[in-house]
Amino acid sequence: MAPLLREIRHNAILWLLAMVPAVFIAQRLKPEAHTLLFVLAVLALVPLATLLSHATESVAVKTGDAVGGLLNATLGNLTELIIALAALRAGEFTLVKASIAGAIVTNTLFMLGASFLIGGLKYHVQDYNRVSARLQTSLLFLAVVAMLAPSIVPDAGSVASSSFAHQLSVGLSVLLIGTYALGLVFSLKSHREFFGSTDTAEAGEEAFPLGLALATLAGVTVLVALVSEVFIESVQQAAVALGMTPAFVGFIVVALVGGAAEMASAFSGASRNRLDLSVGIALGSASQIALFVAPVLVLLSYVIGPAPMNLLFWPGAVVMVLISTLTAFLTTSGGRSTWFVGVLLLMVYLIFAMTLYLLPPNMQ
Amino acid sequence: MAPLLREIRHNAILWLLAMVPAVFIAQRLKPEAHTLLFVLAVLALVPLATLLSHATESVAVKTGDAVGGLLNATLGNLTELIIALAALRAGEFTLVKASIAGAIVTNTLFMLGASFLIGGLKYHVQDYNRVSARLQTSLLFLAVVAMLAPSIVPDAGSVASSSFAHQLSVGLSVLLIGTYALGLVFSLKSHREFFGSTDTAEAGEEAFPLGLALATLAGVTVLVALVSEVFIESVQQAAVALGMTPAFVGFIVVALVGGAAEMASAFSGASRNRLDLSVGIALGSASQIALFVAPVLVLLSYVIGPAPMNLLFWPGAVVMVLISTLTAFLTTSGGRSTWFVGVLLLMVYLIFAMTLYLLPPNMQ
Amino acid sequence: MAPLLREIRHNAILWLLAMVPAVFIAQRLKPEAHTLLFVLAVLALVPLATLLSHATESVAVKTGDAVGGLLNATLGNLTELIIALAALRAGEFTLVKASIAGAIVTNTLFMLGASFLIGGLKYHVQDYNRVSARLQTSLLFLAVVAMLAPSIVPDAGSVASSSFAHQLSVGLSVLLIGTYALGLVFSLKSHREFFGSTDTAEAGEEAFPLGLALATLAGVTVLVALVSEVFIESVQQAAVALGMTPAFVGFIVVALVGGAAEMASAFSGASRNRLDLSVGIALGSASQIALFVAPVLVLLSYVIGPAPMNLLFWPGAVVMVLISTLTAFLTTSGGRSTWFVGVLLLMVYLIFAMTLYLLPPNMQ
Repeated sequence: MAPLLREIRHNAILWLLAMVPAVFIAQRLKPEAHTLLFVLAVLALVPLATLLSHATESVAVKTGDAVGGLLNATLGNLTELIIALAALRAGEFTLVKASIAGAIVTNTLFMLGASFLIGGLKYHVQDYNRVSARLQTSLLFLAVVAMLAPSIVPDAGSVASSSFAHQLSVGLSVLLIGTYALGLVFSLKSHREFFGSTDTAEAGEEAFPLGLALATLAGVTVLVALVSEVFIESVQQAAVALGMTPAFVGFIVVALVGGAAEMASAFSGASRNRLDLSVGIALGSASQIALFVAPVLVLLSYVIGPAPMNLLFWPGAVVMVLISTLTAFLTTSGGRSTWFVGVLLLMVYLIFAMTLYLLPPNMQ
Repeated sequence: MAPLLREIRHNAILWLLAMVPAVFIAQRLKPEAHTLLFVLAVLALVPLATLLSHATESVAVKTGDAVGGLLNATLGNLTELIIALAALRAGEFTLVKASIAGAIVTNTLFMLGASFLIGGLKYHVQDYNRVSARLQTSLLFLAVVAMLAPSIVPDAGSVASSSFAHQLSVGLSVLLIGTYALGLVFSLKSHREFFGSTDTAEAGEEAFPLGLALATLAGVTVLVALVSEVFIESVQQAAVALGMTPAFVGFIVVALVGGAAEMASAFSGASRNRLDLSVGIALGSASQIALFVAPVLVLLSYVIGPAPMNLLFWPGAVVMVLISTLTAFLTTSGGRSTWFVGVLLLMVYLIFAMTLYLLPPNMQ
Repeated sequence: MAPLLREIRHNAILWLLAMVPAVFIAQRLKPEAHTLLFVLAVLALVPLATLLSHATESVAVKTGDAVGGLLNATLGNLTELIIALAALRAGEFTLVKASIAGAIVTNTLFMLGASFLIGGLKYHVQDYNRVSARLQTSLLFLAVVAMLAPSIVPDAGSVASSSFAHQLSVGLSVLLIGTYALGLVFSLKSHREFFGSTDTAEAGEEAFPLGLALATLAGVTVLVALVSEVFIESVQQAAVALGMTPAFVGFIVVALVGGAAEMASAFSGASRNRLDLSVGIALGSASQIALFVAPVLVLLSYVIGPAPMNLLFWPGAVVMVLISTLTAFLTTSGGRSTWFVGVLLLMVYLIFAMTLYLLPPNMQ
């Protein structure tokens, strides 16, 4: 326990762990105070996500390069996955899809852009491994193609609820997971010399011992799941109360909450001129959500959901993911960054956020 | 005749020539057995396309660099052209357009992707002439712009049958053929030092003497035309019988049949680490179909068709060609390939093929 | 006055200044002769734009690097701005938007393409600063994203006249102007070593003394404003009389007239193997119109317009600007050009021009 407590003392974000019991107490005492529950749940999820990410990395470090990479790659977005599972079980498919698309957009635009800006304000020009960025954006591009596949159909309007949509979604999910797996073989095994060793655990923190790491992983996962339930139940009504559109909440708020821990690592990497770390986290996380988390949710929905979920996204979400992927591709293809590249990425994100924020209720 | 017979003995594909008389006999005896006729026609077209391609290359070798390049560039897709002409004469405009778009998609994704995969499984990293790839993808991009032109029109729905569509199609066809011609001047004449000599005849086969090559060219062209008639007549009903959607047949099956000979050359090039050859065939063939075969068909439809054909494609076809072109551009811009690049291209192709295969009949 | 008269004597375009009084006389005598007024106004605007551009450059030269660059960057498209203001005051929002989109398309495709062609016919290969081209196309890309933002909305049809559209347009305008300003800080200040000194005044002309330059700037601005009024009033009916569609006039004719002076400089730069100058003018002008002129017009419409103008463009215009930006990005990313690159850009432009020219009246 000592390393855990030391970690908590040194990392101010973890002091928010006090919010975890607060969530459960508030839920008992004031089950109708949606806005309060929403705010408490958000504040509780941030430190939990940080702990989860640190525990995953600690396990990864212990198990060696290939297995560690694999672990990081599959558990790296555990928070997002658990939140989405809570929404899936509640049958909130729109929220699930909004949070998936939102996480991809937030990681490729906000996390990457803020990393470039933070790094660029400190260093004149920063270089990073463009081969790695290219692999991740290529994977994202494939996910975009999968999202666009139903638009090939002449009469896309009648597609949504058909059995065609479900068959196609299962097929696409299998394809995406398969490609993700082959991508891991490619980058961790067959051509790993092209992908510089971005040892993620070296993010300035001390690794947990294996036993503690596994226990933390298990315990925190349960806590995240419980808090996520509260979060999902309260988010819609809280959004209305706070004057935010549901689309804004799904795309922006949920994505920022779920990705808080990774953002802390990415920004810290950028400010220490280790941009490889930042780019790896931002784009790696986005491609993992697109090619692993999303298809896994589709397949799991047949087991745990009230009804099967398909992979058809709202056209606006497809446009945003497409633009984010293109933007990430164009800005990272050179392997070199300055503060203005960060500004450009953040501006694209701001355009999306502003549009979603202003969206009148009758248009959603 | 001796080189022709020797060729047939050495090339197992050519043994399928036995299917050519089988097609005509079956058509006589069982004119209603559409599925049988379809299968026989497919099997007969593959060796004929191979012979046609070999004869064209033999003539090209004999006539020297510039004229030879020109010949290869204009006759390289003779099989596709003849099949499309048969469909055009039958007034099957939807099939003509599907086979054009399908051939572009199949060449840029399947032929290129499989070449990268085959080569990448044998060699760790393969390099090729990126300038040449860039020219071909730029030409393809121009064709995509031409396909998108009608979408500029506010009310695109009412465009299809209007005289506007026909005027625009003729104008675009002239523009595309002109650009294709200028592209040949550029790559074969004014800046040929940038385009490595990909002598296509050196594909391991022995060139025919000029007389035999010309005779083969003439004779096989007639045979391909005759078999194509059978193919076009039987394809729709055979598709239904085989449980395939018409869209799948037009896009995937016809394109694979028409391109079989080129694929054999491209794959053989990749496995001998001569990726320039593979990329040249795949992208060169795609750009030729887009900028030469398709516009020539539009112009010819005024002479031989039952009605003029325009250049307006089904939106889904435009999306697929656009994505294929973008994918080819992004993956070839570096001039370097590994097996995983091939996997990515093939996955995009699989997504399209799966979507078209699953398409329910009422949505086409 | 002497340098001004000497300039007029040496520059044949300036002889057209005789058309300026002709416009006003004709407007007095024949206010209903729309076609005549239109032709005279076009002929009068070309030399005025040339003078305006020369006066701006002369002031810029006198004020030193940073301020000069800023001046050039803000006043470089003064002609386009004045013409658009005249249309804005007349409430001709469709014409304003068509001329904005048309100017972006014309600069990125026609001005850039013709520069590459003119230069490429004289020099085998030409190199230029790709970093600078990349910055401009990135800015253009951001503007395209802003144009696409409303398409994120599910029911885009009902958006046009809503208060949502107006709020979003004001927000986007502020974002774009801010990014444009940051781009100037980036290229003129923080990272100017990457942007070669394209001293625009060295376009072969002699700079005016400061007093004369300022007087010319003031006097010619007034004249351009007055002629623009006539131009805007006559353009629609003249278009019909000349057999041109309004869309063609807004996109092609107005853009060519407004950009005539810059084109002269860009083409002259290309033919003297100073392609940096040409690319800088063409792409710099396009990004300035997109990120400065257009948003300024939106904000000004609240002050001077009969009603506020939003930033929502006709989908076809968005498609054309998107394709133009992509084309410019793809063709300039290498920093190297030949005549065929120019042909490709011009062909894309021709496809758009042809489509707009053929557009039947009931489809606009």
